[in-house]
Amino acid sequence: MKHLNEKAAKNLSAIREQKPLIHNITNYVVMNYTANALLAMGASPVMAHAQNEVEDMVTFAGALVLNIGTLTDDWILSMIKAGKKASERQTPVILDPVGSGATPLRTASAKKIIEQTRVSVIRGNASEILSLRQAESKTKGVDSIHSVEEAAKTASILAQELDTTLAITGPVDLITDGSRVIRVANGHPLMAYVTGTGCTATATIGAFLAVDDDPISATATALAYFGLAGQVAGKNASAPGNFMIQMIDALYTITPQDLKEGCKIEAHN
Amino acid sequence: MKHLNEKAAKNLSAIREQKPLIHNITNYVVMNYTANALLAMGASPVMAHAQNEVEDMVTFAGALVLNIGTLTDDWILSMIKAGKKASERQTPVILDPVGSGATPLRTASAKKIIEQTRVSVIRGNASEILSLRQAESKTKGVDSIHSVEEAAKTASILAQELDTTLAITGPVDLITDGSRVIRVANGHPLMAYVTGTGCTATATIGAFLAVDDDPISATATALAYFGLAGQVAGKNASAPGNFMIQMIDALYTITPQDLKEGCKIEAHN
Amino acid sequence: MKHLNEKAAKNLSAIREQKPLIHNITNYVVMNYTANALLAMGASPVMAHAQNEVEDMVTFAGALVLNIGTLTDDWILSMIKAGKKASERQTPVILDPVGSGATPLRTASAKKIIEQTRVSVIRGNASEILSLRQAESKTKGVDSIHSVEEAAKTASILAQELDTTLAITGPVDLITDGSRVIRVANGHPLMAYVTGTGCTATATIGAFLAVDDDPISATATALAYFGLAGQVAGKNASAPGNFMIQMIDALYTITPQDLKEGCKIEAHN
Repeated sequence: MKHLNEKAAKNLSAIREQKPLIHNITNYVVMNYTANALLAMGASPVMAHAQNEVEDMVTFAGALVLNIGTLTDDWILSMIKAGKKASERQTPVILDPVGSGATPLRTASAKKIIEQTRVSVIRGNASEILSLRQAESKTKGVDSIHSVEEAAKTASILAQELDTTLAITGPVDLITDGSRVIRVANGHPLMAYVTGTGCTATATIGAFLAVDDDPISATATALAYFGLAGQVAGKNASAPGNFMIQMIDALYTITPQDLKEGCKIEAHN
Repeated sequence: MKHLNEKAAKNLSAIREQKPLIHNITNYVVMNYTANALLAMGASPVMAHAQNEVEDMVTFAGALVLNIGTLTDDWILSMIKAGKKASERQTPVILDPVGSGATPLRTASAKKIIEQTRVSVIRGNASEILSLRQAESKTKGVDSIHSVEEAAKTASILAQELDTTLAITGPVDLITDGSRVIRVANGHPLMAYVTGTGCTATATIGAFLAVDDDPISATATALAYFGLAGQVAGKNASAPGNFMIQMIDALYTITPQDLKEGCKIEAHN
Repeated sequence: MKHLNEKAAKNLSAIREQKPLIHNITNYVVMNYTANALLAMGASPVMAHAQNEVEDMVTFAGALVLNIGTLTDDWILSMIKAGKKASERQTPVILDPVGSGATPLRTASAKKIIEQTRVSVIRGNASEILSLRQAESKTKGVDSIHSVEEAAKTASILAQELDTTLAITGPVDLITDGSRVIRVANGHPLMAYVTGTGCTATATIGAFLAVDDDPISATATALAYFGLAGQVAGKNASAPGNFMIQMIDALYTITPQDLKEGCKIEAHN
């Protein structure tokens, strides 16, 4: 996908030139790492969650990132308030439904955010994403999926039902808006040993959406860039402590030219 | 204590094979570091504190870690709710009474958790642990303790009174269930210069309790492993920034064989 | 300013000898980094925000650091409660008005803290500090300031109006109490790529105020020390991940003698 590699380079350059403000309402565990990752790539992070502030803050933002990792009802209300304002202003909203499917509170909260705001992209692992199906969904259950091809088909139907772009991340990331399907093969096994790499991938998609109107190319190029940072980190570190620091460094040092050459993005129609 | 070194090796292997979910309701300062430490050792961390979620989440857990480092009344209610459900299910509960003894809120909250849940292990420094005595306690006050032997005696009486296992950590860690007393001499002075090493030691005990039914051996082997990680880090780093990163690496790279050889566990009866 | 370099050395020695407790009510993003920085320099951090605890905790503290980075109304109430108690006890209060000027909640909260407590030092960037002017202020608006000399003049008038010491940090830091003006030229460009360096500079001022009665010399020497740590880190790291770790190391390794030689503090009257 040569043109997506070019797009990745263009998006990273745009982030570094425009320094878009990314408004995060995210979980306590990853706030620091996410903020450092956004700064390293060239974006400008802000974390703000007060119900009497989020509408004001999101008006400055190039994207809004909602992450339910350490949710309470109060925080979900703030997310919806910020999400509605962002939707009004055509500011892209990205949702990370952390743990959706694991507890009723998480599944219900993720669905409520999707219903009440205009979510451009949802990123999660396979079980989180597939937990978002409605009762009457045409998509298959997690247990019934036996191959990557079936996962892709199920995600496509769900993306159509939810009218959004879905990103299922794993060793190979799958991105679909219901018609197009893209796979990204960048990444490194140690990413699974650092808390918040998924959440930070979501925030990275936020930064790319702030400079790229097309959710599917923004998501694919963001995940390729983030995965490439993992690969670079994996060359310099062999255990998760140093790896997580090297990832921040890589987000800073990777150039647009590196993306032209290093993104592993493939389209499957 | 050759058999405890063997046990340490066995426990670490079991964590890496079973990847137990460790449910943490802990303080904001250490959430990220604790999650990364648990991932590095091979466990699976989750942080969740909402009162309408903790009972659901703890049912998946191999252990529940309660830490009052940045407590409020709301969070204490969540801790007790989660702790009661864990107690019902025979899921081990580990308490870190951060700052107990320093303020009335902390002392009262720690005691409330102990009264209302079945706590398997409590880890703290000497003043935190000794603050848990009741008014009519037979144990001596902090000021009246003049030797390590007296500290051990006081802790033993308190462990009997509270019907739990106590771990007082310091240059040498003291573990007692009221009848047995074990000392662990692993560790490194720079651990005192990294925030959350105590809290993360507590979470490590949680991971070991998820695979080892005996609180005293789970606690001693966890503290020996965590202290050995400090020693390994201390060989590679001479200041706290790099030291804290090297500790995460060491939790990942230390092998069961390293524990057989490196644990400094001694029993004193 | 040879005597301020001597003072810097004296202050750092005093922190390492006395290990003052620094009570922080700060934002979620930087809690971990701030605590590690305070430990590395030799101070003793505590984070506590419960309304029914902050008055007890602040009585142990050598300084109180208030930071509104992830504020809610509840936390502001805790800050004011702690701030009033600190004011009563002559314990220095340091305010970091993160994002003041950006949203009404932040501006109003910062002003409320200033009105209701006795704030010794306020540290922020230029727009945060200048947002603290009252409607009838004699100070000029941000847009009307065309030179460093004008910024210094505006800050001096504001410091008099607020009866406090102001620190505007940037490539060169400006410190004024309304009569004296000091500039500190220590620092490194990568500090802007690490989240929480501003917040941690504020906490560092807290540690220095715990051992130095004069707000202006405590602030100048703290910022010179913190900036020098950035310079040392910049020699060992060229990207923000390693840089932030090297800064913690530098806070630990810098000696009083290094401060005598390395502080770039200049007085301008």
